[in-house]
Amino acid sequence: MTDAVAQEFQTRLSYVADATERMLDQLLSERALPGETFRPAAFLGAMRYASLGGGKRLRPFLLIETARLFGIENEGVLRAGAALEMIHCYSLVHDDLPALDNDDLRRGRPTTHKAYDEATAILVGDALLTYAFDVTADPATDADPAIRAELVLALARAAGIGNMVGGQVMDLEAETSTEPHSAEDVIRLQSMKTGALLHYAVEAGAIFARADARAKAALSHYGKALGAAFQVADDILDVEADEEALGKRAGKDAGRNKATLVAALGLKAARKRRDALAQEAIAALSSFPDEKAAILKEAARFAVARKN
Amino acid sequence: MTDAVAQEFQTRLSYVADATERMLDQLLSERALPGETFRPAAFLGAMRYASLGGGKRLRPFLLIETARLFGIENEGVLRAGAALEMIHCYSLVHDDLPALDNDDLRRGRPTTHKAYDEATAILVGDALLTYAFDVTADPATDADPAIRAELVLALARAAGIGNMVGGQVMDLEAETSTEPHSAEDVIRLQSMKTGALLHYAVEAGAIFARADARAKAALSHYGKALGAAFQVADDILDVEADEEALGKRAGKDAGRNKATLVAALGLKAARKRRDALAQEAIAALSSFPDEKAAILKEAARFAVARKN
Repeated sequence: MTDAVAQEFQTRLSYVADATERMLDQLLSERALPGETFRPAAFLGAMRYASLGGGKRLRPFLLIETARLFGIENEGVLRAGAALEMIHCYSLVHDDLPALDNDDLRRGRPTTHKAYDEATAILVGDALLTYAFDVTADPATDADPAIRAELVLALARAAGIGNMVGGQVMDLEAETSTEPHSAEDVIRLQSMKTGALLHYAVEAGAIFARADARAKAALSHYGKALGAAFQVADDILDVEADEEALGKRAGKDAGRNKATLVAALGLKAARKRRDALAQEAIAALSSFPDEKAAILKEAARFAVARKN
Repeated sequence: MTDAVAQEFQTRLSYVADATERMLDQLLSERALPGETFRPAAFLGAMRYASLGGGKRLRPFLLIETARLFGIENEGVLRAGAALEMIHCYSLVHDDLPALDNDDLRRGRPTTHKAYDEATAILVGDALLTYAFDVTADPATDADPAIRAELVLALARAAGIGNMVGGQVMDLEAETSTEPHSAEDVIRLQSMKTGALLHYAVEAGAIFARADARAKAALSHYGKALGAAFQVADDILDVEADEEALGKRAGKDAGRNKATLVAALGLKAARKRRDALAQEAIAALSSFPDEKAAILKEAARFAVARKN
C-alpha cells in the first residue's frame, strides 16, 4: 500500500457515499412510478429516515469498485448499489425491532421503531426490501434484461432464507442458547448473516461486467474473505470500542451470549484470523493488474483497520 | 354462465390450489439452492406453516388461468404463481403482527406469531418476500430473462410502497382516525392494499404470454375491476358472515373504524357496486373468444359470490 492508494481509496469511498446518498434521495422521492398508485408522504419520510444520512455505504462501494475494475461506471451500477444499500438498511431496521435485537440506537440516532413506531418500522423494512428488487429489475439499471434477472436472483439468494435471513435466525437462536458457540458455527453463521450480502456486492459488479468464469471465481474468493474479515473485525471492535466511537452500546454482544469469533477464539486468535482473511482477500485479486485492483485491495485493509 | 362452466371453474380452482400447494412444498424444501449456505430447518417449518395448507390460492389461479387464455401452461407459470402466493402469505403474516392488526387467528389457525413467536413471524415474512423474487427471477421460471425481469418489476411495484405496503400504511392510519372515510379514499386504499396484487396476477399471465398492448389493456381492466369487486365483497362478507364461516373474528372491521366500503357507502350500495364491478370485469374480456375466457369470467362471478 502506498499513501497515494490510501488517499485515492478515501476519495472514492466518500465519492461513492455521496453518490449513493443522492441516488437513494432520488429513488425515495414522492413521485409515483408507472404502476404505482400513490406514495404516502409520511411513510416515505420514515423510509428515508431508515436509509439516508448514514453509514459508510461499504456495500455500494464494493459493487461500484468491482464494476470499475472492468471499466464500467454508469448510473445503472449506482442504482444497483443503492438497491443493495436498501437491503442492508431494511435488515438493520428489522433486526433492531423489540422482538429481535431490541436496539434503541443505530449510528448514534434513534432506531426507526423508536423514531416512529413498531408498525412503521416493520412496514419500512418491507417496503425497502421490495423496492430494492424494483430498482434492480428496472430497465434503467441495465438495458440487458439478462443482467437484471441475474442481479435479482443473486441478490434474493444472498438476502433470503439460505443466507441473510437464515443467519439472523441462527444468531437469535445462538443468543438464547447457554452453550458456548464453536468457531465453526460462528463462521458459518457470519458468512450467512453478513458475508453473503458483501459477497453479492462483488458478485454484482462482476455480473454488470459480464466477467468470465475465472474472474468471477477470483472475485467470489475475494468477496468471501473480505466479508469474513469484516465480520471478525466487527466482533473485535465490539470488544474494543467505547460507546461514542461505535454509536451503539459497546460490549453488548458479550452480555448476550452472542455468537462472536472473539468469544469462540479469544481476542488474540480473532485478530490473527482477521488479518489473515484480509491478506487472503488481497491475494485473491492477484490475477488483476495491480493498478486496477489497488482500490479493492485497499478496501480489504480498510475493512479490518476501521475504528467503527 | 352455464353449469358446465361453473363446474369446470371449480375443477380448475381445485387443480390450481393443489398444484400451487405442491409447488410451494417443493420450493420450501430443506435442500439449499446454489448460492445458499444453509436453510435452518425449524425456521423453514415456520415458513411452511405460514404458506402451506390454506387459502383458495386465488392469485395463482388468476395468473395461471390468464396464461392459459393464451395457451400457455407450464411449470414456470406454476412457479410464478407460487411466488405470488408467497407475497400474499408474507403480507398476511406481517399484517397479523401485534404492532399491526394484532390478529390471533388466520384461516381458523393460530397466526404465525402465535404458533411461533414475533421474531420468527417478522423473519418468516421477510424470507417469503425475498424468496418470491428469487423464484420469479430463476431461469426455471422462464428461459427468457426479459420475461423474468418484467415479472420481477411488476411484482415489486404491486407489492411495494406505491401499492400494497403503502395501502397497508394508509389502512393503519385510517384506523386511528376518528373521521369517517370517504368512499373515494377507501376505493384508492383498497386498490393499493389488495387490488394491486390481484392485478399483478393477471398482468403476469399476460407477460408470460407476451400479449400485445390491446390484450394487456383489456386484461388490466379486468384485473382492476376484479380486484375492486373482490375487496368490496370482503367488506360485505365481514358484516354478513358469522365467525365459523370466515375463520376470523367477524365484524372486527366495524369495531375499529376500518376503512371499508360498507361503512362509506352502506350495505345496499356496497352490494350494488360489487355486482357492477364483477360485470365490468366480465365485460372487459369481451374481445377474447368466450370459450377461452369463460373461466376468467366465472372467476369474477366467484369473487363476489364466495362465502369466505
